[in-house]
Amino acid sequence: MEFRLIDRIRERTAQGREDVRLGIGDDAAVVAPPAGQELAIAVDTMVEGVHFPHGTDPADIGWKVLAVNLSDLAAMGASPAWALLALTLPRQPVAQVQQFIDGFADGFTQLAQPHRLALIGGDTTSGPLSVSVAVHGFVPPGQALVRGGARAGDVVLVTGTLGDAAAGLRLLQSGARVTEDARAAYLIERLHRPTPRLQAGLALRGRATACIDVSDGLLADLGHICEASALGAELEASLLPRSPMLLGSFDDVASLNFALAGGDDYELCFTVPPSLVAEVQGDLARLGCGATRIGRMVEGAGVRVRDEQGQWLESNHRGWDHFA
Amino acid sequence: MEFRLIDRIRERTAQGREDVRLGIGDDAAVVAPPAGQELAIAVDTMVEGVHFPHGTDPADIGWKVLAVNLSDLAAMGASPAWALLALTLPRQPVAQVQQFIDGFADGFTQLAQPHRLALIGGDTTSGPLSVSVAVHGFVPPGQALVRGGARAGDVVLVTGTLGDAAAGLRLLQSGARVTEDARAAYLIERLHRPTPRLQAGLALRGRATACIDVSDGLLADLGHICEASALGAELEASLLPRSPMLLGSFDDVASLNFALAGGDDYELCFTVPPSLVAEVQGDLARLGCGATRIGRMVEGAGVRVRDEQGQWLESNHRGWDHFA
Repeated sequence: MEFRLIDRIRERTAQGREDVRLGIGDDAAVVAPPAGQELAIAVDTMVEGVHFPHGTDPADIGWKVLAVNLSDLAAMGASPAWALLALTLPRQPVAQVQQFIDGFADGFTQLAQPHRLALIGGDTTSGPLSVSVAVHGFVPPGQALVRGGARAGDVVLVTGTLGDAAAGLRLLQSGARVTEDARAAYLIERLHRPTPRLQAGLALRGRATACIDVSDGLLADLGHICEASALGAELEASLLPRSPMLLGSFDDVASLNFALAGGDDYELCFTVPPSLVAEVQGDLARLGCGATRIGRMVEGAGVRVRDEQGQWLESNHRGWDHFA
Repeated sequence: MEFRLIDRIRERTAQGREDVRLGIGDDAAVVAPPAGQELAIAVDTMVEGVHFPHGTDPADIGWKVLAVNLSDLAAMGASPAWALLALTLPRQPVAQVQQFIDGFADGFTQLAQPHRLALIGGDTTSGPLSVSVAVHGFVPPGQALVRGGARAGDVVLVTGTLGDAAAGLRLLQSGARVTEDARAAYLIERLHRPTPRLQAGLALRGRATACIDVSDGLLADLGHICEASALGAELEASLLPRSPMLLGSFDDVASLNFALAGGDDYELCFTVPPSLVAEVQGDLARLGCGATRIGRMVEGAGVRVRDEQGQWLESNHRGWDHFA
C-alpha cells in the first residue's frame, strides 16, 4: 500500500524543479545543490491529539506541517527548495485513507506551490496519526540568521501580530459557536493556516543580529535568543502587536497573555541595531507583514515585560499581569 | 522539555564534521554541501507495535532506524553525511524518558560513528512511540544507482544472506526460549541490528545497472526493479544465499519462504551485465559481505522462482513451494 499512497501524494504535489534529479519512487531522492550555497535543514512533527485536535481537516494538517517547517527556514533567512514527508496513518478503509491523502496533499500543495517547494521523498507507515516533514532551503555562506548574535542595545521586533493562533485554539476548545463570527474565523484561520514569513527572513539577512520564529510563544522563543546571546530582553506590553480580531474577541488581560505566551504564531522575532530599525521596518511593511518594535536587548538574562506605568509584569496562575 | 531532550541527544551523538556549519540548537541546521556532488536523501519511520515490538531495547531502535535509512543510501551508491531525527515519545516519568533517550542515542551512535554521520537536527514531541530519520549522502553527478536501469540478460545478485531477519522475528514471536541458542541469537541480531551495505553500494557505482535494498522481501523489492525497468526476473531457489544459522533453525520450505518473502534483511539486490559479474563478486567478497548470483533479468514482467528440477514455484497459503 505504501507504494500506491506515496504515488498518490506525488501526483498531487507535483512541482517541477531542475535541481531534482530523482524524486519520489526510488530508495532515495537525488538533488543537485546550487554551487556556493549552504543548506538550511529543519524537521518538525505534528501528532494528532497533541499538535492538532482529532477531526482536524486533513488540508489544514497538510498546510500547517509544511508552514511550521517553512517558518524555521524563514527564521534562518533561507529560501525553500525541497521537502521530505513521513506520514503515519491509522489502518482504516481505503476510501478514508485516500480522502485523507487527497486533502492533506491539497493543503500541502497550496502552500508549497507558490514557494516552488518540491516534495522529493516520503515514507508512509501505519500507526497513530502523525506527520513529520523535513525541509531544505538555500542560504549564502555565513549569512544564515542565528539565535546567538544579539547585542545589548539591539531593538527587538516582531512581524505581524501575536496571540491570534492561541486565541483561535481557545475558541475551538471552548465549544463556542464560531462559524458565523468573522473575528473568530480569522483567529482560527491563523491557527490552522499560519503564514511562514519567508520573504521577511530573506529581507533580514545581513541586518538582523538574531532571529527565531515564534512557535512556543514570544516569551519562550525570545528566551532562546537571550540564552544563545547571553543577554536579557525587556519588552513593553503596550507595544505588542495585537490584531483587531484578537482585541475584539478577548479582554486586555487575556489577549496580552495570548500575545506573550501563546504559541503557534509563526511570526519572526528578531533583533537589529537601532540604526537599522527604520529601514528594516520600511522593507517589511512593503512585504505586507510589517514589523513592530516591542523592546530591546539588555545585559542580564531572561525576558521581562513592563506595563504602561513602568511596572514589571509577573507570571501567576492567571498568566501574566500586574498582580503578582 | 523538548530543548533539554534534544540537547541530551546531541551530547550523546556528537560527531565532528567540517561541513556542518550549525548543528542542533537553532531553528534549522546549516550545512555546506561539497562542490560537484549530488545529494541522496531518504526518510524512514519506525512505529512501536508496527515495526518493532513493545519493549524493544531502545539501543536496538536507535541502531535500526538509522540502519534502515543508511541502507537506502547504500542502495543509491551514496556515502552518508548528515541525519535528522524526529522522535515521538509517550508522556512518562523523566527518568524513563532519559533512559530511553540514552539507550536510543547509544545505539544510533554505534552505527553513526564509524560512518562519520552527524546528527544535525531533530524534533522531539509527545505521542505514541515513533521514530523518523532522514539521511543525506553524497554521490557524484549522474552516478546514483537507480531501480530502472536493468537490461534483459543482466545477472541478478544479492549481498550477504536472505531470510535471517524474518526468521529472527518468527523466533521472537513464537515465544521460544532463545536466549541460550547461538543460532537464534544470530538471527535475532540480524533482525535488530541490520548492517547497511554502504561499502558495497559504493563499489557498485558505474557497474550495477539497477539496485535496491531488500526491506520488504526479495520478491517485492526485486519486483520494484522489474517494474521500474519494464522487465521480468527469473530466480533459482537453490541459489538463494541462506545462512547456516537459518538452515539450522528452520526446514527447507520455511527458510526458503523467509529468503523469498521475509523483509528486514537490508541486503542489496542488484543487476549487472554478465561480463562484470566475476569482477563485482570479487570486490564484494573483499568487502566482507560477498554477492551471490541468484537469477537473471528477462523480457516480460514480474519475478518467477524455479526449483532445482526446473519447476516454477507458486505462491499459496503456505508461502512459496512446489504445490500450487
